[in-house]
Amino acid sequence: MYLAKIYVNYKQSILNPEAQAIKGAIINRLGYDEVNDLKLGKYFELTIDGVKNKDEAAKKTDEICDQLLANVNMETYKYEIEELEAAK
Amino acid sequence: MYLAKIYVNYKQSILNPEAQAIKGAIINRLGYDEVNDLKLGKYFELTIDGVKNKDEAAKKTDEICDQLLANVNMETYKYEIEELEAAK
Repeated sequence: MYLAKIYVNYKQSILNPEAQAIKGAIINRLGYDEVNDLKLGKYFELTIDGVKNKDEAAKKTDEICDQLLANVNMETYKYEIEELEAAK
Repeated sequence: MYLAKIYVNYKQSILNPEAQAIKGAIINRLGYDEVNDLKLGKYFELTIDGVKNKDEAAKKTDEICDQLLANVNMETYKYEIEELEAAK
């Protein structure tokens, strides 16, 4: 069994108003002017079972990200694959 | 300067309907029945400058998470602190 840790972020060129609002709250309302940038994205943990090896788990993860988890026009994704226990 | 990578997830006891819907789409609509679980959370990257050391960066990260980034009643958070360049 494998665990895919997936990080989906907006592309650099895309303005993320939610992130800008949170950054403003941290600096202006909470007073943490040490914070000079904030990025906000989505984080998925996908448990994949019944695949032969890590490469196949990675291939499935790519396909699932491209087809559903990330809007490839506006977002980028990266992931890490961990083996949870010996694949049966 | 330090980079705090923050992961905010729902507590185990809290049902996440959005995650359930995405999981259902992956299995039923895309046909990936190898997927047997999906967790969905938020991912923040916070750049912190002007702090003395890594511990101080971690302390600020805890405070910001407790006060704003995580709803501690329903969510848990974890983070990693990386040094980006020698703190001035």
